[in-house]
Amino acid sequence: MTVSGSVLAGLSEAVIDEFTAIVGPAHVLVGEDLTAPFQTDWTRRWSGPCGAVLRPADRDQVSRILRACHARGLSVVPQGGNTGLVGGSVPRAGGSDIVLSLTRLDHLGEVDRTAGQVDAGAGVTLARLQAAAAIAGYGAGMDLGARDSATVGGLAACNAGGLRTVRDGTARQRITGIEAVLADGSVIRRMSGLVKDTAGYDLPGLLIGSEGTLGVITEVRWRLVPERPARATALVRLDSVTEAESVAAALRDALPSLELLELMTEAGIALTLEHLGASAPLPVTAAWLLVECAARTSPADELIDALEALDLAERTVMAPGATGRRQMLRIRESHTDAVSRAGTPHKFDVGIPIGRLASFVEAATATSRRIAPGSQFIVWGHLGDGNLHVNVLGAPPDEERLDAAMLALTAAHDGTISAEHGIGVHKPAYLSLVRSDADRAAMAAIKAALDPGGILNPGVIFGTAA
Amino acid sequence: MTVSGSVLAGLSEAVIDEFTAIVGPAHVLVGEDLTAPFQTDWTRRWSGPCGAVLRPADRDQVSRILRACHARGLSVVPQGGNTGLVGGSVPRAGGSDIVLSLTRLDHLGEVDRTAGQVDAGAGVTLARLQAAAAIAGYGAGMDLGARDSATVGGLAACNAGGLRTVRDGTARQRITGIEAVLADGSVIRRMSGLVKDTAGYDLPGLLIGSEGTLGVITEVRWRLVPERPARATALVRLDSVTEAESVAAALRDALPSLELLELMTEAGIALTLEHLGASAPLPVTAAWLLVECAARTSPADELIDALEALDLAERTVMAPGATGRRQMLRIRESHTDAVSRAGTPHKFDVGIPIGRLASFVEAATATSRRIAPGSQFIVWGHLGDGNLHVNVLGAPPDEERLDAAMLALTAAHDGTISAEHGIGVHKPAYLSLVRSDADRAAMAAIKAALDPGGILNPGVIFGTAA
Repeated sequence: MTVSGSVLAGLSEAVIDEFTAIVGPAHVLVGEDLTAPFQTDWTRRWSGPCGAVLRPADRDQVSRILRACHARGLSVVPQGGNTGLVGGSVPRAGGSDIVLSLTRLDHLGEVDRTAGQVDAGAGVTLARLQAAAAIAGYGAGMDLGARDSATVGGLAACNAGGLRTVRDGTARQRITGIEAVLADGSVIRRMSGLVKDTAGYDLPGLLIGSEGTLGVITEVRWRLVPERPARATALVRLDSVTEAESVAAALRDALPSLELLELMTEAGIALTLEHLGASAPLPVTAAWLLVECAARTSPADELIDALEALDLAERTVMAPGATGRRQMLRIRESHTDAVSRAGTPHKFDVGIPIGRLASFVEAATATSRRIAPGSQFIVWGHLGDGNLHVNVLGAPPDEERLDAAMLALTAAHDGTISAEHGIGVHKPAYLSLVRSDADRAAMAAIKAALDPGGILNPGVIFGTAA
Repeated sequence: MTVSGSVLAGLSEAVIDEFTAIVGPAHVLVGEDLTAPFQTDWTRRWSGPCGAVLRPADRDQVSRILRACHARGLSVVPQGGNTGLVGGSVPRAGGSDIVLSLTRLDHLGEVDRTAGQVDAGAGVTLARLQAAAAIAGYGAGMDLGARDSATVGGLAACNAGGLRTVRDGTARQRITGIEAVLADGSVIRRMSGLVKDTAGYDLPGLLIGSEGTLGVITEVRWRLVPERPARATALVRLDSVTEAESVAAALRDALPSLELLELMTEAGIALTLEHLGASAPLPVTAAWLLVECAARTSPADELIDALEALDLAERTVMAPGATGRRQMLRIRESHTDAVSRAGTPHKFDVGIPIGRLASFVEAATATSRRIAPGSQFIVWGHLGDGNLHVNVLGAPPDEERLDAAMLALTAAHDGTISAEHGIGVHKPAYLSLVRSDADRAAMAAIKAALDPGGILNPGVIFGTAA
């Protein structure tokens, strides 16, 4: 550990000593021990120096750290797997931020089979939670690409979604209990796992999705879902996003076993198949719907019945076995990589009310062509919950008019500028598009009430002016 | 309209004039026009005089009223169908409270079939919402005994549950959008119905369950559920609550179509059958489980398979048709009436972690016998979500040691003192049993941040000291 005033950029030796007394010298990283993973996020777009990385071992250490930071007015950036996409978990002030890495809080309890729930420390990765659930005959009820790094604390803080929310919801629906440390070091703990509890305000629900600005989540109680080993998977060829939208609504109402309802479109499929070096097993069409049902026993008949009732059987390819299923999912999951390989996209994570998706896609395509002529517009996403991932390739990276126009268009469609990635430090300037003055004033009042010193993740959600 | 100083108990003519200008003379009730339904709640236990009842027609009138009350420091008690059980919607100060009746905000939108959602004003009753949903081929995903009077605004404010939460959740899971007026008259509106939206704090989720202390909910967007016309209903005879608890967990994991999982016990069944004048079609046993599955096509085979796998087929009575089904449900639903007829019970609406229910019931039985010898202990409830309705008959109504001991026992089992009825003015004194100092301090800070004058439903949740 190298400690020197210049390296510490504002943190005095006394402060470092105080932290060292709390977490031990091996878990205070400063100077040369500070490595990029703590200071740069998943996108590599957000990066900044910090004063120190602290790696507490437990809730009490987190509490003592926050009490010290609260007393000294030091900013704290809570960090889990650091897989966020909006710069919400990396330092940004002039090098004095404390990064609070929660990965050592990785205690995973035994699965409580009677309740169908499990306690997990903030640092437990989603993949580990999934594996523990599977051994006990359950599923986690959540999956996303960053599963090996993303931690349950981060999933909670950002109200993560992913591919399967159409059935099992976002983190807010999966989490029945939370332990969190507030800015002043006080601890809130509601870990009984009650799914019905009206004794006062829903603080767990408020902390979920608050992106580390109201408290540091140290443990959660996660509600598992019954195992659903039998799956039926299909790709349905559709003539337009409009048709995909109405078919999606019909399938949602018809299929209780529906678990995946993903939209892919022409440009994205073409780029992805090229990226995968796969010979296209699919005719090119305007829109594909990837549908998966999951149950204890095969839901294939149910899915086929629903598709026949919609007169779509002739336009459907079904996966006959596990290999075919993996291929279908791979095409959808490889979209992000394919786009990244092809250039530096402008990325938007929007949510649009179901019923207005097709109209949004049409307008967004025209908007991107107008502002960035020659650019390529690629959209895919979770049709079941209205969450579209919009990518524009070939526009200059610093073309802010594109960002502004696309998010304004989202707002004009009554949508949200962030369906599942959060606001972070990327989108505070656009928050007023979707949250009124009264709404933002209420949020700021809550922030000030719970973190009067403004030490928790400053800049996130509210921007630097908050 | 009779206006006089003595009747108005503190409200000046100038104030009444101001309200009259907002809502019109027909909708300011004072003096002799004030009738009991506005001042007394469903239980008849909570009652108090108020200064005036105001019946606004729309959101803007609500906003103007609150702005006036905020400026003058007048307390406001929001009221929907007034079917609460904890005194949260009736006046209690010395006659100066304003009762804000929301029943005229009864606009019900057309069902949006693409989204599977509908907009409903705060004053729309649950029964009306259910009927509109049914016509469009949907269900409301919620049902409870007070359906004809309870309004969606009240269901939201109290995070109502009911019989079918094991599948469709409480109000918080059903509501995708909220419009609310805050204490200063400012309006928060998020009505796009997005099921994934991470742009800032979850204010709708915070308002839901806040019992009118943070804002007045004026409209909600309600997420419907697909129609499930085919039902399979069974009564399963079990030897103990312990056995019922483990069978309930197994059925929850095995039956995706499970919609009802209700516990009844010996004393309650006997009292109810006597009340109904029904000759018992059922042998007396320690515990009965009422199970119902619902789907598009008959889920009977699925239910029978699950019961056979648990070796319970011989102990099960199934309803062969609609009449039998109604009889089974009637026994469960008549428990409340049967108990009320038999005396004035001490009632507890507790939530206990699944896995500790049987242990709680055993200890609670012993506790009630110890404190009130000769009393009768009757329990039933929603086993799927751990919500038990505990009734003690034959104890003196003012025996507060019983209340204190029962709620302390609940807390000792990691339970909640209110699963679905709320805290109201009935239980603030007991809130510290289940919410730590830090938790209550955080709630109070949020309350002070959003309602600095403390005008919204004073006394509720926090008690008179707040």
